Amino acid sequence: MKNVHTDLAVESREMYSESNDVEIEGVSVDIEETENYSITRIEIMNNNGVEKMRKPIGKYITIDIPNLNITDQDLKDEISQALAKEIKGMGYNKENSKILIIGLGNWNVSPDALGPKVVERVLVTRHYFVNYNKEFDETMANVAAMAPGVMGITGIESMDIVKGIVDKIKPDLLIAVDALASRKMNRVSKTIQLADTGISPGSGIGNKRMALNKETLGIPVLAIGIPTVVNAATMVNDTLDLILDSLKEQAEVGKEFYNLLDDLSDDDKYSLIVEVLNPFMGNTIVTPKDIDVTIDDLSIIIANGLNIALHPGIDLKDVNRYLR
Amino acid sequence: MKNVHTDLAVESREMYSESNDVEIEGVSVDIEETENYSITRIEIMNNNGVEKMRKPIGKYITIDIPNLNITDQDLKDEISQALAKEIKGMGYNKENSKILIIGLGNWNVSPDALGPKVVERVLVTRHYFVNYNKEFDETMANVAAMAPGVMGITGIESMDIVKGIVDKIKPDLLIAVDALASRKMNRVSKTIQLADTGISPGSGIGNKRMALNKETLGIPVLAIGIPTVVNAATMVNDTLDLILDSLKEQAEVGKEFYNLLDDLSDDDKYSLIVEVLNPFMGNTIVTPKDIDVTIDDLSIIIANGLNIALHPGIDLKDVNRYLR
Amino acid sequence: MKNVHTDLAVESREMYSESNDVEIEGVSVDIEETENYSITRIEIMNNNGVEKMRKPIGKYITIDIPNLNITDQDLKDEISQALAKEIKGMGYNKENSKILIIGLGNWNVSPDALGPKVVERVLVTRHYFVNYNKEFDETMANVAAMAPGVMGITGIESMDIVKGIVDKIKPDLLIAVDALASRKMNRVSKTIQLADTGISPGSGIGNKRMALNKETLGIPVLAIGIPTVVNAATMVNDTLDLILDSLKEQAEVGKEFYNLLDDLSDDDKYSLIVEVLNPFMGNTIVTPKDIDVTIDDLSIIIANGLNIALHPGIDLKDVNRYLR
Amino acid sequence: MKNVHTDLAVESREMYSESNDVEIEGVSVDIEETENYSITRIEIMNNNGVEKMRKPIGKYITIDIPNLNITDQDLKDEISQALAKEIKGMGYNKENSKILIIGLGNWNVSPDALGPKVVERVLVTRHYFVNYNKEFDETMANVAAMAPGVMGITGIESMDIVKGIVDKIKPDLLIAVDALASRKMNRVSKTIQLADTGISPGSGIGNKRMALNKETLGIPVLAIGIPTVVNAATMVNDTLDLILDSLKEQAEVGKEFYNLLDDLSDDDKYSLIVEVLNPFMGNTIVTPKDIDVTIDDLSIIIANGLNIALHPGIDLKDVNRYLR
Repeated sequence: MKNVHTDLAVESREMYSESNDVEIEGVSVDIEETENYSITRIEIMNNNGVEKMRKPIGKYITIDIPNLNITDQDLKDEISQALAKEIKGMGYNKENSKILIIGLGNWNVSPDALGPKVVERVLVTRHYFVNYNKEFDETMANVAAMAPGVMGITGIESMDIVKGIVDKIKPDLLIAVDALASRKMNRVSKTIQLADTGISPGSGIGNKRMALNKETLGIPVLAIGIPTVVNAATMVNDTLDLILDSLKEQAEVGKEFYNLLDDLSDDDKYSLIVEVLNPFMGNTIVTPKDIDVTIDDLSIIIANGLNIALHPGIDLKDVNRYLR
Repeated sequence: MKNVHTDLAVESREMYSESNDVEIEGVSVDIEETENYSITRIEIMNNNGVEKMRKPIGKYITIDIPNLNITDQDLKDEISQALAKEIKGMGYNKENSKILIIGLGNWNVSPDALGPKVVERVLVTRHYFVNYNKEFDETMANVAAMAPGVMGITGIESMDIVKGIVDKIKPDLLIAVDALASRKMNRVSKTIQLADTGISPGSGIGNKRMALNKETLGIPVLAIGIPTVVNAATMVNDTLDLILDSLKEQAEVGKEFYNLLDDLSDDDKYSLIVEVLNPFMGNTIVTPKDIDVTIDDLSIIIANGLNIALHPGIDLKDVNRYLR
Repeated sequence: MKNVHTDLAVESREMYSESNDVEIEGVSVDIEETENYSITRIEIMNNNGVEKMRKPIGKYITIDIPNLNITDQDLKDEISQALAKEIKGMGYNKENSKILIIGLGNWNVSPDALGPKVVERVLVTRHYFVNYNKEFDETMANVAAMAPGVMGITGIESMDIVKGIVDKIKPDLLIAVDALASRKMNRVSKTIQLADTGISPGSGIGNKRMALNKETLGIPVLAIGIPTVVNAATMVNDTLDLILDSLKEQAEVGKEFYNLLDDLSDDDKYSLIVEVLNPFMGNTIVTPKDIDVTIDDLSIIIANGLNIALHPGIDLKDVNRYLR
Repeated sequence: MKNVHTDLAVESREMYSESNDVEIEGVSVDIEETENYSITRIEIMNNNGVEKMRKPIGKYITIDIPNLNITDQDLKDEISQALAKEIKGMGYNKENSKILIIGLGNWNVSPDALGPKVVERVLVTRHYFVNYNKEFDETMANVAAMAPGVMGITGIESMDIVKGIVDKIKPDLLIAVDALASRKMNRVSKTIQLADTGISPGSGIGNKRMALNKETLGIPVLAIGIPTVVNAATMVNDTLDLILDSLKEQAEVGKEFYNLLDDLSDDDKYSLIVEVLNPFMGNTIVTPKDIDVTIDDLSIIIANGLNIALHPGIDLKDVNRYLR
C-alpha cells in the first residue's frame, strides 16, 4: 500500500487493493449503482480496519457522479436529493436537533472556498427560534451556520472559533463542509464524501492541525467534502502511470521503459516524484480551469442537499427557492 | 433635550446644548483644532454626566474631518496618523498586549460593511506568535481579527461568537469597529469616534442586543465607529429646520410658517415626523451615493490607523504597504 | 403639474392628475388588475401627449407589485412570467432576431448595479451561433449581453461603447436594463417599467447624456427599469405632505400650519425643498436598507423574464435553471 | 526546437537553444542584470527571426523577478518603476497621446483575471478631458480603460468590442494587459513581458481567435503579460526532466532509465505526454495555491507601472495613492 495521505476513504480502499474482491477484515464495503451516480458505503469497524485504511472508525459514504457538469440541472437536483437521503440515513439529525453548519477553508483561495460558499447559501433559521423563543417547529429545523476562515486570515485556529461557538450555543450536531484533495484528477468536482468521523488533522486543502470530532467537541460531527484539487506530485505520478500503460503496448523502447519503471514499487516511484518536485512546486495546485464557477455550483448542490435533509418543510420541488 | 438616540457623544453633547459654553457637571470637553480636522475629547466622569449625556462613564474622542474625500490621499494619511495617536493615547495597548480586532456589521449591506472591511485589511500576526511559540516581538504586536457577521446571516448573536473566541484565545484588549448612525448628514463619512466604553445595545446600524464591554467580556473594549447613514426621520427633521431658517428671512407667509413651527418643541416636531414616516419607511436609509467606495476608503484609513498604533515597527511612511 | 423629472410614465401621469378619470388627449391608459400585481399600459400617441407627459411617443408598461418581497418565491416567479408576457406582447422580438442586452449603471454603486447584475445572470448564446455558424435554432434565441460601465469607471461614455458594439455585431433588437429613480418611496423595488422608447438623457440614477434609442442606434430599443432609489428632496416633500395630512385632522396649530402650506403650490413647495437641500445633500440617496440583496433578487426576476421571453425552449418550470 | 507554443519570447529563445551564445540571425538579445531582477530585451528583426522564434517582428522585453513575493513592498515598487521605464522606453506614448487600456481575460477565472483587475485599478482620466473639453494637461495623460470580458460571458468576441470602441473614441495607443501561460512553473507570477507586437491568436489563457495589433486596429498595440499558469503537460514534462536529472547521478536502474528517455527527442517526449494526458485533463490548470491574492498584487504592480509611465504628474513616491 502506498504511503500517501488521501482525504477519501474510497481512495484508501483503492490503495489497499485495486480490487474490491480483496476483503479487509473490519472494513465493510457496499456499492449501489444508479444510472447517473454510484454510492459507496464504507464502514471501518475495528482497529485492523483503522490500521489498513489509515482512517478512524466510522462510516464513509461516497457519491461518485462521473458526468456531473454545470449545465445539467436535472442531474444536480438528483444529486442534492441523493445527498439529502444519505445525510438523513446517517441518523444523527433528530426532529428537534439544533444544528451548526461550519464552512471550513479559505474564501480567498478559489478551490478552498467550498465550505464558506455553502455557508453563504444554506438556509439559516436559528435566529427565528431565538427571537420567538421557540424550541420546535414542524417545518423548519434550528440551523446556524458560519465560516471561521483560516489562520492566515484571522490569526486564530478555526478549531478555537468553532469550539468557542459550540460552547456558547450548544448545538446537538455539527456539520462541517470542506474542500478536499484527491489523488485522482477524474474525481475532482465529481465526488462527494460524507463521513461521521469529523475532520482530521492534515486533511482538506489547507493545514488543519486540530480535529473537529466528537472527542474534541462533545457532539457528533458529520463531515461533507468534495475534492477540488489534486496535488502536483499526484498528477505527475498518474501521468507517468498513463505513459507506462501507453508504452506497454508499443515497440522496443516502450517495452524497456515499461519494464524499468514497472520494477520500481509504487511507493518508490511516488517518493521519487515528491522529492524531485518539492523544491520547485511545494505550493502548486492542479485544478480545473473553471474551478471558480464549479465551486459555486457544487456549493448549491450541497446547500440544497442540506436544506432538504434538515428542514421537514423543504422538498426537492422547492429547494432552489431557499438558496440564499 | 431631544429624546433621540445617537451613537455619537458629540451629538449627545449638542443635543444637551448647542453651545459648548454651557457646562455639564461631570462632563469635560476638550477641543483641539488643526488646519484639516478637529478633535473633540469628551469624558463622562460621574452619574450626572451619564444621565445628561445618556452614555456610559468613559472617554469619547471624535475626529471631525469636514473636507475628507476620496481623492486627497495626503489628508487620508494625516487622519490615519491622528487616529493612531489617539488610540495610543488611550493607553490600553501595552508593549506585549494580545489584541483581538472585531469588525461588527453585515458585509451584505454596503453602509454596514465598515467593520468587516477593516478586518479584511488590518495586519494579522497572531499566527506567527503561535507558530513560532513567541510571547513578544520588538516590531510586531500580537493581533488577531475577525468579523462575526450578523444574526440574520449566521443565526448566531455576534456577542456569542465574540465571547466564545475571547474565552479561547484570551486577548488583553478588544478593539471593535462598527458603522454608526448619525443625526446629521454632514457627519456621514466625515467623523471618526473612538471610545473606551465598548459597544452598547441598540447602537450601530443593525440592532445589537448585547453589549461588548469590560463587564461582559472581562477585558477593555475600544470602539471605533464612523457614521455611514442617517435615518430618514433625522433627514426630514433637519430639512424642516433648514426650511424654517430659510423662511425666517423671507416675506409674510414665511414668517407665519416660521412662528408656527417654532412654537413646536424640538421633541414634538421629531416625534411627529417619526410617527408620520414610520409605516412608510421603517427600513429606509439615507446615505451618500458613493457609499460603497467611501466605505472602502474609510476602512483603509482605520486599518492604517490601527496598524500604526499597534505595531511598533510600522510608521506612516510604510503604512500603505501593510494593507491587505 | 409639477416641474419634476421622473423616469416612470405612471408618475408623469399621476403628476398631470391624481385621478385616472381625467383624460389626456393623445394618451391612452389601460389598467389590468390581478390578485398580486397590476399592469398599467400607457401609450403616448401624439405631440399633445408628449407635451403633457414630458416623455417621447411610445408604449410604457408598468408592473406594480406592492407586496413583492425576497422570501416569496412564488410571487417572484409569477412576476418573471408576467414580464415575459409583456416583453413578447411588445412584438419586437421575432423568431430569429439577434438580441443585444445592455446592463446600464455602475456596478460599484449598489442601487445602480441592477443592469450589470441582470447581464451577469441572463442566458448568453450568441457564441454558439457564431462557433457553429448557425443562423437559427428552434429552442434558443441568439443573445449577447454586456455591461458597458459608467464614464467615471471607464472614461468612456456608455453610448460610445454600445454604439461601437452595435456597429460590429449588428443586432436586430437592443434591450437596455437600468435602475431608475422614483418619486415615491413605496414604488422603490416594487415596480417594473418596460418601454419601447429607449433610454433618455438624464434618466436612471447616474447622468446619462446621450440617448439609446432607434434614432441613435438604428434598431428598436426596449428599456426595462426598476426604481431603486428616491432622491432626498422627493422624500422630504412626501413627508411634508404626510405631515400636512396628519395635521389637517388635528387641533388649532395643525389647522393653521395646514392652511399655510396648503397655500403654497406643489411646485413652490418642491422648489423650496430642493433649494434648501441642495448645498447639503446633492449626492444623497434614499434607499431600502437591504438594497444589496434586493438588487440581487430583482436581477433574477428580470433575467428570468428575459430568458422566458426570448428563448422558445425555456418555460417557467425550467427558468431558474438557466440563471448563471 | 520543440513544437510547443509559448507566449513568452524568452521561452521561444530558450527553445531554440538553451545557450544565449548561440546567435540567431535576425534576432538580437540584450540582457541587463540588477540585484533584484533581470531585463531581457529581444528584438526580432527579419523573417529568419520570425521563423526561428515563431513570433512576429518587433520588440519583446521580459522582466524576471525570481524573488518577487507578496510581502516585499519595496521590491514591488521597484518593479513598477522598472516596468514604467521600459514602457516609456518603447517610445509609443507621446505627450498628448490618447490611450486606451484593455484588460483581456475572464474575470470569473482567477488566474485569467489579471487584465480586468489592472483595468479596475489604473487611473482613468479621459472623462475629465471630455467634460472640460481639454486636449492636453501638463500632469495628466488622457486614459480610458475597459475589460471586454470573454466570449463565454458576453457572447461577443473581445476583438469586436475593442474594435468598436477604438472606432468611436480613436485613441493613439492601445495597451492590452493579459494573463499568459508559461512553459516553466518557476516563471509563473515572476515574469512580466512587454511587447509592441500586440496580442496574437491563441495566446493568453483563453482562446483568442483574432489578433489585437496595428494591422487589425490601425494604432500601435503594446501588450503587457504575466504568466499565471502552466499547462498540465508542461508540468509533467518538466518533472520528467527533473526525474531524469536526478536519476542520472544514481545507481544502475537510474542510469538505464536515463539513457532510455534520453534517447527520446524532446519533441517526442512532449508529444507523448500531451497525447496521454489529453483525454483526461484537457481543462486542467496548474497554478500557485495563492493565485487569487497574487493576481491582486500583480495587478497593482502593473497598474502602478502604467500610472507612472503615462501620467507626467505621478512618480513613485505618490504612486500607491492613485490606485483605485
